[in-house]
Amino acid sequence: MTEKYQQLVSHLSEVHNINMAGAVLGWDQQTQMPPGGAEARAVQLATLSRIGHEMFTGDETARLLEDAAGELDGADYDSNEASMVRVVQQDYAELTKLPADFVAEQTRVTALAHEVWAKARANNDFKSFQSALERILELARQQADYLGYTDHPYDALLDQYERGITTAQVKEIFDGHKPQLVELIAAISHNADKVSDAVLHQEFDVDSQRQFATDVVTAYGFDFTRGRQDVAVHPFCTHFSHNDVRLTTRFHNDFLNPALFGLMHEAGHGMYEQGIGDSLEGTPLASGTSLGVHESQSRMWENLVGRSREFWTWALPRLKAIFPSQLGNVDLDTFYKAINKVQRSYIRVEADEATYNLHIMLRFELETAMLAGTLQPADLPEAWNELFESYFGVTPPTDTLGVLQDIHWSAGLMGYFPTYALGNLLSVQYFNKAIQQHPSIPDEIAEGKFDTLLNWLRENIHQHGRKFTSDELTRRVTGESIQSRDYIQYLQTKFGEIYGL
Amino acid sequence: MTEKYQQLVSHLSEVHNINMAGAVLGWDQQTQMPPGGAEARAVQLATLSRIGHEMFTGDETARLLEDAAGELDGADYDSNEASMVRVVQQDYAELTKLPADFVAEQTRVTALAHEVWAKARANNDFKSFQSALERILELARQQADYLGYTDHPYDALLDQYERGITTAQVKEIFDGHKPQLVELIAAISHNADKVSDAVLHQEFDVDSQRQFATDVVTAYGFDFTRGRQDVAVHPFCTHFSHNDVRLTTRFHNDFLNPALFGLMHEAGHGMYEQGIGDSLEGTPLASGTSLGVHESQSRMWENLVGRSREFWTWALPRLKAIFPSQLGNVDLDTFYKAINKVQRSYIRVEADEATYNLHIMLRFELETAMLAGTLQPADLPEAWNELFESYFGVTPPTDTLGVLQDIHWSAGLMGYFPTYALGNLLSVQYFNKAIQQHPSIPDEIAEGKFDTLLNWLRENIHQHGRKFTSDELTRRVTGESIQSRDYIQYLQTKFGEIYGL
Repeated sequence: MTEKYQQLVSHLSEVHNINMAGAVLGWDQQTQMPPGGAEARAVQLATLSRIGHEMFTGDETARLLEDAAGELDGADYDSNEASMVRVVQQDYAELTKLPADFVAEQTRVTALAHEVWAKARANNDFKSFQSALERILELARQQADYLGYTDHPYDALLDQYERGITTAQVKEIFDGHKPQLVELIAAISHNADKVSDAVLHQEFDVDSQRQFATDVVTAYGFDFTRGRQDVAVHPFCTHFSHNDVRLTTRFHNDFLNPALFGLMHEAGHGMYEQGIGDSLEGTPLASGTSLGVHESQSRMWENLVGRSREFWTWALPRLKAIFPSQLGNVDLDTFYKAINKVQRSYIRVEADEATYNLHIMLRFELETAMLAGTLQPADLPEAWNELFESYFGVTPPTDTLGVLQDIHWSAGLMGYFPTYALGNLLSVQYFNKAIQQHPSIPDEIAEGKFDTLLNWLRENIHQHGRKFTSDELTRRVTGESIQSRDYIQYLQTKFGEIYGL
Repeated sequence: MTEKYQQLVSHLSEVHNINMAGAVLGWDQQTQMPPGGAEARAVQLATLSRIGHEMFTGDETARLLEDAAGELDGADYDSNEASMVRVVQQDYAELTKLPADFVAEQTRVTALAHEVWAKARANNDFKSFQSALERILELARQQADYLGYTDHPYDALLDQYERGITTAQVKEIFDGHKPQLVELIAAISHNADKVSDAVLHQEFDVDSQRQFATDVVTAYGFDFTRGRQDVAVHPFCTHFSHNDVRLTTRFHNDFLNPALFGLMHEAGHGMYEQGIGDSLEGTPLASGTSLGVHESQSRMWENLVGRSREFWTWALPRLKAIFPSQLGNVDLDTFYKAINKVQRSYIRVEADEATYNLHIMLRFELETAMLAGTLQPADLPEAWNELFESYFGVTPPTDTLGVLQDIHWSAGLMGYFPTYALGNLLSVQYFNKAIQQHPSIPDEIAEGKFDTLLNWLRENIHQHGRKFTSDELTRRVTGESIQSRDYIQYLQTKFGEIYGL
């Protein structure tokens, strides 16, 4: 009955296997590979990328898609079969626009640029990265031209990470809460001395940090028999199957936050991948549906759970037992405020909830300007610093703490940043809905129980993989599209209480 | 001038990149992958393997080979260009002889047999493995028929691992030193109490072992900026480039040998790969030329260097500094003898230098008899035990310690074992030649200096990759083919002195 559909899935699985092999090579590159391996790895990734691209964009895919679509005519929109054909038709339309040689060149350039960026960042030397960035920008413009757009070349890039959303929509969402953010941060800055995070800046043994953070994400529900955790300069989560999900984090021996909240964050991504339905395994639908929705999961476990008073009611005694000399005398209120201290930090990944979206708005503004050609890479450090000053009232002292901090541009990921901010908004929308349906969730969190929340997420979000778009999913789950109302309300309530505004 | 050759190399590099990607996935599988990842990894590897095989055995390879051969007519035999065409023509002829269906069936049978063998070994139950072995043997005969041979079906299998050598030649080489080995071991057994290895069986902290072993192979010349070291149940060495070579080892906290000599061994393989010439990088010639020559390198650094008195003159004080309570009172002579204790062990992988080749001869005799049809799998345990008794003077108490100990047959690797013994012979031939040309090498080793030896190996062996066959290389380097004279003389001298024969 579904013979042609099975042929399609079998073909797509081969492509998927090639892509997953590429993901293994990428993970290894960032966590294990010795420096000497970089050059060969770049060409290996280029070959996999080209072959995967050719296999997927070949005529056979079109033919199999057409045959399967005919066979499945009238199938339920929500079924795996109809979703597979629908989503893969869109993928196919998008990817057939990019010539194989272009994709291979982009892969080659970015693989090499990674090393250049890492050195430039280490040496605070933007100039040494500039020409790589110029080439990457050139390729990004070319990519937008290949993909096509009506209003802004940035639309084409954005669509790859958050299908269906436009630059104008993002601008509207951002403009819709930027003033409240700036106002909130200004109000907080007048009460800045009400909160100290000194307790977090002490000597914390790295192995003990690892143990505690691992215990926390295990309690959350991340399954280490189907995943692992390693160290990476720029933490990320990747997967080669919903049964093989890799988290990474980095440790500071004098600051608790990066490893602890970083691992909660990556575990949020990881549990999303681990929760994809079995029936989608090995297919192109076996992944989170968009970067924004993915980020909603990581931010939820990092912030809405991990930075809540309820969570630390349960966790603080445990953390104290591991670091008695550093934290033995710290009470819950002091600790809760410390981990929620709002700071005009230079570094996005260390940013608190209140300032985070401003970091993204800055990048969005610079990226769209570069794409539009109104900002040149040579002028980027200055533009970065000026904008930073206008948003945060301070200027980064070095490019390492400014324009060079993120890996994304070196990896060719233009149009990616906005999804972080969209994820923040979605995290609160989803969390509010979960609590509305299960009001016991906050009390359970205070007892170290996370399964009601995780099961709700699995049921409503994770299992579907890529079957629905971000907007489809959000409307199904919450009854409305993405909005900034819930997020701003959450921030105003939480930080109003903490800072006594 | 070499346009067609460049097209060939470009095509072969794509295949090579696919194979190297497979190697990365294989390494990850054995060193990093969580248990849940196994199923997806199997299909990912199958996809890569199929695509690599199809790309290489397709008509395009034949066409490009022919075009390049025409273009290069008259090129120097030693040149990269002539070697590439010559070696790849042989690879192509070999791989195109096996029908895809046959390869798939062999893969299926051995994948299942692995589980059956593992259980049989655990339960000391040969009968439960017998029918799997019968099927594997049947397939091995079929494989030999596909590959073709003139004298003995075993020739065809052997040729896959040690191109150009025949069963008759191996038999002659083995028969040429078997009596001396048996005699040497018998003589040693009368003086067995002269040597104790008790000092090696103590509690040794694993991290300290790792540090010492890593320091040793770093001193040897293994470059950790172009490689790394991890833990694996079954130690191995793999590479994804000559600039990315991965060693693995395993640690026992109550026995020094496995990690220390194991890492020396794998580093010997690793330095071979790291020494392949830059101009061969990314091509099918960028690897060691045969399993025998590869083993000569690992055995040289493990035994001829690592188990020499000179080496420990330098290394023992360092090891004592790390393990003062365990080894503080041990003198050089006691330690040197301990690491060279000869034992009639049942297990090949634990065998010392004196007994090792006998373990291989036993397997060679049984494999060739099975291939010729003069020995049936049903009679294998008895044949194993009888032969073992005649070689070693003892009978394995169980099949687990006898015929079931090795993974090779369950994996379909018939014809592979002899390369281990050939490697032992070659290691001494090469080492003697190096010392003949650089008589200072032993004194340098006693000072912890290894660069004269390593540079000699790079110049004479490593840089050539797969350009020359084992025999071509050995005759170039030593002026003669493989022989057992040097090996026997080395053993008689070394163990005669240790055991006062």
